[in-house]
Amino acid sequence: MKKNVLIIGAGGVARVVAHKCAQYNNELGRIAIASRSIEKCRSIIDSIARKASLKVADEIKAYALDALDVAATAELIKRTQSQIVINVGTAFLNMSILRACMETGAAYLDTAIHEQPDKICETPPWYANHEWKHKKECQAKKITAILGVGFDPGVVNAYAALAAQRYFEQIDSIDILDVNAGSHGRYFATNFDPEINFREFTGTVWSWQNEGWVSNRMFEVSRSEDLPQVGEHKLYLTGHDEIHSLSKHLNVPNIRFWMSFGEHYINVFNVLNNLGLLSEKPVKTAEGLEVVPLKLVKAILPDPASLAAGYRGKTCIGNLVKGHKDGKPRELFIYNVAEHEAAYAETDSQGISYTAGVPPVAAARLIASGQWDTGDMRNVEELPVEPFLHLLDEMGLPTRIKEAADDRPWAG
Amino acid sequence: MKKNVLIIGAGGVARVVAHKCAQYNNELGRIAIASRSIEKCRSIIDSIARKASLKVADEIKAYALDALDVAATAELIKRTQSQIVINVGTAFLNMSILRACMETGAAYLDTAIHEQPDKICETPPWYANHEWKHKKECQAKKITAILGVGFDPGVVNAYAALAAQRYFEQIDSIDILDVNAGSHGRYFATNFDPEINFREFTGTVWSWQNEGWVSNRMFEVSRSEDLPQVGEHKLYLTGHDEIHSLSKHLNVPNIRFWMSFGEHYINVFNVLNNLGLLSEKPVKTAEGLEVVPLKLVKAILPDPASLAAGYRGKTCIGNLVKGHKDGKPRELFIYNVAEHEAAYAETDSQGISYTAGVPPVAAARLIASGQWDTGDMRNVEELPVEPFLHLLDEMGLPTRIKEAADDRPWAG
Repeated sequence: MKKNVLIIGAGGVARVVAHKCAQYNNELGRIAIASRSIEKCRSIIDSIARKASLKVADEIKAYALDALDVAATAELIKRTQSQIVINVGTAFLNMSILRACMETGAAYLDTAIHEQPDKICETPPWYANHEWKHKKECQAKKITAILGVGFDPGVVNAYAALAAQRYFEQIDSIDILDVNAGSHGRYFATNFDPEINFREFTGTVWSWQNEGWVSNRMFEVSRSEDLPQVGEHKLYLTGHDEIHSLSKHLNVPNIRFWMSFGEHYINVFNVLNNLGLLSEKPVKTAEGLEVVPLKLVKAILPDPASLAAGYRGKTCIGNLVKGHKDGKPRELFIYNVAEHEAAYAETDSQGISYTAGVPPVAAARLIASGQWDTGDMRNVEELPVEPFLHLLDEMGLPTRIKEAADDRPWAG
Repeated sequence: MKKNVLIIGAGGVARVVAHKCAQYNNELGRIAIASRSIEKCRSIIDSIARKASLKVADEIKAYALDALDVAATAELIKRTQSQIVINVGTAFLNMSILRACMETGAAYLDTAIHEQPDKICETPPWYANHEWKHKKECQAKKITAILGVGFDPGVVNAYAALAAQRYFEQIDSIDILDVNAGSHGRYFATNFDPEINFREFTGTVWSWQNEGWVSNRMFEVSRSEDLPQVGEHKLYLTGHDEIHSLSKHLNVPNIRFWMSFGEHYINVFNVLNNLGLLSEKPVKTAEGLEVVPLKLVKAILPDPASLAAGYRGKTCIGNLVKGHKDGKPRELFIYNVAEHEAAYAETDSQGISYTAGVPPVAAARLIASGQWDTGDMRNVEELPVEPFLHLLDEMGLPTRIKEAADDRPWAG
């Protein structure tokens, strides 16, 4: 039983997290929002006021914080009496925020793998490079730490566990399919932090096949899928966090991640990448200024949060699972469809932020109620996933299952 | 009668200028090469030694110079006793180098219009914004200043004057056609300083039509031409220096400039331009660093000089002139074809640098001999152009004339 939430970060996902925490503040208690820019935190609080998102009258406050500073973060956790920390800042902050939680006893949640600014991490499984090194210390100190509890990773890990527990005796393959069929109407933009977004695509594409790691380049392997509500899309084999925990925790020989891209996105990406403009390594201009190209690209692209108002269309993300049940072959697609306009109406955010921001709040509610307050470090598939999916059903991200012509709510 | 040459700049064009000055140092006297990087100057001198380009044994020396510093430039002109200054540094230096020449009495030559770093100059005629403001002072001080004496502007201005003086009673239109049919084998590169190159294409495309200025956007208007030795190419209406003096000095109602581009170049250009990466205005990164996007793009692209060794193919640049002679319609193409590999064999430089670097040395020879030492500021079409074209014939840039099926040397 924990309460009072500190949200770290003030981008599009943090905005959704804050709205959702507000909607359930009778369970979660006081809310603090902290980021480098206190103005961005205040703008979120203004949005919450406009939408009247607070379920009950209670404190919601903004704080300026450099979350790389462990002492300052620990101090803020103590000052705000926060027992739950939702880290939705940049992926460079994970290890320092986790450390602050370990020092204060607060529960830790994040939605993406830790990254080091100066290198794109190459060695699978990624979680072993940083997060899992702290597993024993979390257990010894009884720190609840839930890794990667956004949509993907996060909800799709729960779908994988659900498939293994409920619908299959043996699973041959899980293909996670992520389609954004929405349109933001801008020349080019990324749906979340461009720096993190591009870093996903410039490194090696790792997938788990025949119980081993296989490497490809980005945009080397593709497939076409006709998915519920969004129709036919071309998806590309992409390196992604969840493969790096599911391959360890589930007995499934093939786990792959696929993301949809339009030709225009790929063209812009290829031009920038081929020119070296997506590099995280500094270059020196003729005038002697050291610049990290990727940080300039981030600066000139639209702020992902600014896309929300004009975003139209839907996302469809889910797990295509193939295996056997009762000795017979079975194939299921466990999925969610979300809508950009509905996300904006509810939380002033676009659908990609919405799908990433709702799950950590469902997780926070399960920590508050004690069901997920395990006192150790876990990936989502290591937790009881059905309570999580039930909460998501009521919080705006309902799960459906498509099996041949049958398409139904999972809990039906 | 002037002698001793100071070359300012140490890029690909400066390398050609230095080689050609060396080949005629019996006329031109001592050679000094100055740029911010003395190492780049020394590398040019090494190349001249390797190719044994010096006609007679005489001094050739490297100097470090910030040519924005007028006093330092004037001091170097005096110290080296240079009476001819060939400015082939960046286009931001023109006005400060011209000033140093006016203070010391040296003749001034450049190959491109002056630019201010912080803005892309929009108002035609461009020469009136900076250069021509000093016309009276040059005349009063008897300073010989020859503007834009590269290939285009430069040789094409001479072609225009030649057409008006020799081949036409009345000219209806001059279309300057610039085709680089060469290939450097890299993913993407510009043939000269990317910063100056891109600035040509991000502003308004000005052309002179029906005796007035017409504005278009880059890549808005195109034509296809089948040109001598290089074949069929697609060319695009482009803003360019020479239109801004020819429109004033010749009585020709239509003067346009067209440059060839491949689809790949246009795609990369459009992506960079649409994203704002070709902007000369600084942007601030999330970390607070102020960066001019165009300067970073310059830093990550190949150094144009580095393309020389692998460059294959030819350039064809000339003037398509339409008008009347003896009361009958006439159409001529006055042109030169140059070859990248031949340029490299002779000067360690690619063909674009070669076509830009040979003409100012021909002009310097005409100043040394007194023929072009006019004691005032001129564009090339205001000078006697036939001696200039004769020198170019012997210096590696022969002029040809194509009229219907007839294709002959101009001086034949």
